[in-house]
Amino acid sequence: MTNLKVDYDTALQNVKKETTGILRMGPSLVTGYTAYMADTMGKMLRARAVLASSMDSDGLVPQDAVLFASAIEILHLATLVHDDIMDDADTRRGQVSLQKKSGKRNAVICGDYLLAAAMNQLAKVKYQEKYENFQFSKYIQNIALGELRQTVNNRNYRLSVHRYLSIIDGKTAALFEASYHSGALAGDADAKRANLFKKLGRYTGVIFQLTDDCIDFDTSEEQALKPVMSDYENGVITLPIIHTFQEDPSLLAKAEAGQLSKEQMLEEVKSHEGVKYTHAVAEHFYKKALSIIDKLELQKDQEEILGGILHKAYVGFKG
Amino acid sequence: MTNLKVDYDTALQNVKKETTGILRMGPSLVTGYTAYMADTMGKMLRARAVLASSMDSDGLVPQDAVLFASAIEILHLATLVHDDIMDDADTRRGQVSLQKKSGKRNAVICGDYLLAAAMNQLAKVKYQEKYENFQFSKYIQNIALGELRQTVNNRNYRLSVHRYLSIIDGKTAALFEASYHSGALAGDADAKRANLFKKLGRYTGVIFQLTDDCIDFDTSEEQALKPVMSDYENGVITLPIIHTFQEDPSLLAKAEAGQLSKEQMLEEVKSHEGVKYTHAVAEHFYKKALSIIDKLELQKDQEEILGGILHKAYVGFKG
Repeated sequence: MTNLKVDYDTALQNVKKETTGILRMGPSLVTGYTAYMADTMGKMLRARAVLASSMDSDGLVPQDAVLFASAIEILHLATLVHDDIMDDADTRRGQVSLQKKSGKRNAVICGDYLLAAAMNQLAKVKYQEKYENFQFSKYIQNIALGELRQTVNNRNYRLSVHRYLSIIDGKTAALFEASYHSGALAGDADAKRANLFKKLGRYTGVIFQLTDDCIDFDTSEEQALKPVMSDYENGVITLPIIHTFQEDPSLLAKAEAGQLSKEQMLEEVKSHEGVKYTHAVAEHFYKKALSIIDKLELQKDQEEILGGILHKAYVGFKG
Repeated sequence: MTNLKVDYDTALQNVKKETTGILRMGPSLVTGYTAYMADTMGKMLRARAVLASSMDSDGLVPQDAVLFASAIEILHLATLVHDDIMDDADTRRGQVSLQKKSGKRNAVICGDYLLAAAMNQLAKVKYQEKYENFQFSKYIQNIALGELRQTVNNRNYRLSVHRYLSIIDGKTAALFEASYHSGALAGDADAKRANLFKKLGRYTGVIFQLTDDCIDFDTSEEQALKPVMSDYENGVITLPIIHTFQEDPSLLAKAEAGQLSKEQMLEEVKSHEGVKYTHAVAEHFYKKALSIIDKLELQKDQEEILGGILHKAYVGFKG
């Protein structure tokens, strides 16, 4: 048993080392494509969530949490690589996307390779009964299911709020849920407590997606790192849009005929307060998340990090 | 412990039930795409190999082998789905391919979903020490690596035999290796014996690929279920071609200028006996495989099935 504990900052450094190692130090053929991604790892929010969820009362983090965190970050990258193929995206996190850089063929395989690398990282966690209910592959299936739901609902302007939330559950929330869940288990939480962490993760993920939905309507482009109305242009239906169509169903015919320009859509979302509505839905989840944090009686460091991630998810709004 | 043993035929039926269940009885959104694949499962050679490798002296098969076999068949399907995207293939096993039927976007995600489903199936195997060295995700990585190697060597007419064999190792042999390896472990083989099964799997896989290489030059199309010279047309460099260029390097310039038609290539392969050479390489592996079967002292049923698969791999030749 080498489940030695380290402090949070050391653990985070270790996650960076692990992920960088996978992206840069594998077979040169793969790393030729993936190495550059090590520089675009972003804020590693999911990794931070794993580590914080695993903390003991002294703020220490077990080695298993480092493995879970790096597995989840690599899985996240894998899904981004495949997403970019599907969206024909040229950039990702301000850098050129892998599919643009190396072609779709290579991107399909590199995504598969990274997916396997994530599983491989996970396999390093020594088997213990406590992990029996953490089914990584189920989470991957849910992510794929969310993506599929999103794809079949492309340009479906009649999508209901309920169904939209089930898309988000897979698309974004599943990976957050996996982060909090695995972290809690690594930190020896009992089943009831692990379940609360799971829920906290799911709500946090949903809020992040709703924030992202609103950013699409933020007219100051540089802030968003993506072009205004790019979701709408790609046929991705988000909550501000769903709300707008529900408020004014007379717009449906126009949109379905492809005659609602992005400028017009932007105006309609503004006049029907689609962003404000989305903000209110996010607030609903925010309050639920806060009450879970309350219930969990987290220790100071844990509350700071997990509360911080939740806050970041929520206040990203310009609504 | 419900590792109840059943006879081979029952086990094979159970594998079919498991895989059909995954393809047909999942969330309707996914099964809408995957259900039809249940009818194109082919001969399930890999599943047969797992089951036969796991047989005890009474010819009985443990339940774990059924789980491994179905995981490997589903993984195989996942790789085919992604392969077809990369190759822009319209048909697969005589049926329309998923990417042609449902679009590349859906095919990327369905492949991911099936990959996760395979992992999920594997997760049903109760953890036991004996499986510690069977790293499914490593095999998936090797498959991806083989695919990548093949992609970067597209139209590389200077590919060496050695490097070509390393491509095959990932592309085709890894999954056969995984089959024999997991089967042996499920059947309680010790490390040394499991290793022999692994090797037998690898050699069998290599031979299968070499057979497939030769089929590309078989001028009677209906037999091959794929168009003559389709590998060459897609830039996939196979052993008969490599041999031909090594025999007559003066052809390289012409090929690299894109001036060697498939009809000309076919003639050159014929005159340099590329298929015969490939057959000889296959024979080399065939003899190695036979000597392993000898060493393993298999019981009658086992020898019949595993020897049968090996034979099928080898005599596919028309060379």
